[in-house]
Amino acid sequence: MERHFHEQLDDLKKKLIDMALAVEEAIAGAVEAMVKREDMIADKVIQMDETINQMEIRIDEICLNLLALQQPMAIDLRFVTSAMKINNDLERMGDHAVNVAQLAKMLNHRDRLKPLINIPRMAEIVQSMVKDSIDSFVNANAAVAKKICERDDEVDHFDDQLFRELITYMMSDPKNIPKALNYVLISKNLERVADLSTNIAEEVIFIYRAKNIKHHTEEIFLRDIRSRS
Amino acid sequence: MERHFHEQLDDLKKKLIDMALAVEEAIAGAVEAMVKREDMIADKVIQMDETINQMEIRIDEICLNLLALQQPMAIDLRFVTSAMKINNDLERMGDHAVNVAQLAKMLNHRDRLKPLINIPRMAEIVQSMVKDSIDSFVNANAAVAKKICERDDEVDHFDDQLFRELITYMMSDPKNIPKALNYVLISKNLERVADLSTNIAEEVIFIYRAKNIKHHTEEIFLRDIRSRS
Repeated sequence: MERHFHEQLDDLKKKLIDMALAVEEAIAGAVEAMVKREDMIADKVIQMDETINQMEIRIDEICLNLLALQQPMAIDLRFVTSAMKINNDLERMGDHAVNVAQLAKMLNHRDRLKPLINIPRMAEIVQSMVKDSIDSFVNANAAVAKKICERDDEVDHFDDQLFRELITYMMSDPKNIPKALNYVLISKNLERVADLSTNIAEEVIFIYRAKNIKHHTEEIFLRDIRSRS
Repeated sequence: MERHFHEQLDDLKKKLIDMALAVEEAIAGAVEAMVKREDMIADKVIQMDETINQMEIRIDEICLNLLALQQPMAIDLRFVTSAMKINNDLERMGDHAVNVAQLAKMLNHRDRLKPLINIPRMAEIVQSMVKDSIDSFVNANAAVAKKICERDDEVDHFDDQLFRELITYMMSDPKNIPKALNYVLISKNLERVADLSTNIAEEVIFIYRAKNIKHHTEEIFLRDIRSRS
């Protein structure tokens, strides 16, 4: 039974990693569709959503089965309930990638605004956050969480900067307003994926430090990490 | 043991209802702060977030204890794991209320734009969705889910309408751009709360119909509801 349980846990971890990879790919694709101005790439991202949704349903079933049949305790119980939440977060990230792909398609039918500002760099950071948050979860690496939070600040900074830059474009020429708004929404969607990755990082701390740090201020959180690592 | 378990479940339901009430109050307060242009009301919403966060932590603990000590099966197991997800959703709604309160404070320092368009009406619908989604969960009323989905479409419609209206304002006078953008973001935050309520409604269907309808198209979903009710 014990061995069987750990095999099932390994399967769950593997499936979460696969889902995170799919989400990263969707984000990368959505931004690529915007940069290359290619609807076909955006459509591929939109189609991928169904795969990600099916992955969510499957992972949810695995977790429910684990809880019902294995009745895990302590750290194992936390791992499984956290996996259910993280699964939910990954699925939402997939939805945000679809939003970006749809906004990219709208932009492809308008004139190019300008060298696309910092969105591709922002998307790269967001992708690395998705990857690292899931890696920290499956590898029980709470120290990685600190770095994810730092990158969340970086993404927020990009988002603020972009927001101000886009206001300037809009004010300089009202014709820029509709397309600039699309970029604002793309940036907000990417920022939301970064937030969801940060939630996962907080969940990792929760299960491996058996302490809910989710609603502490970041300062307390960072101090906490430092004093323990 | 059985009786004790149902007492704990009742306690869990009561705490979820209390949390939903707090979230509704936060949304109402954030929009009131915008309508009345009063920073103090917005500050109260921002302070309420800590209470909502503490409620989330407490509910999470109750769920983990229920799983560890009572090892519920079938529908009860689903109820508890869904409660954990719904708890998470409610906490995020609280975050969106804080975002709206902060945006309202920014708007209070700018000239009034115009009769505030449809945001207060949109907020009322969103509040009713939060309330009904939790009621449908604790009262096992899957039929209510259909109505929540319909209201989600209504909120999306308000959001689209507002978006177009705000573009017009921005284009007519570039001085309107910064404040109009704040309204765009308020609308997007409210729309996100509506989405989260819809997620809860889908979760209700999941546990009471033992079938995951989350990723079907809305049409299939509605047909499903009709044929079963």
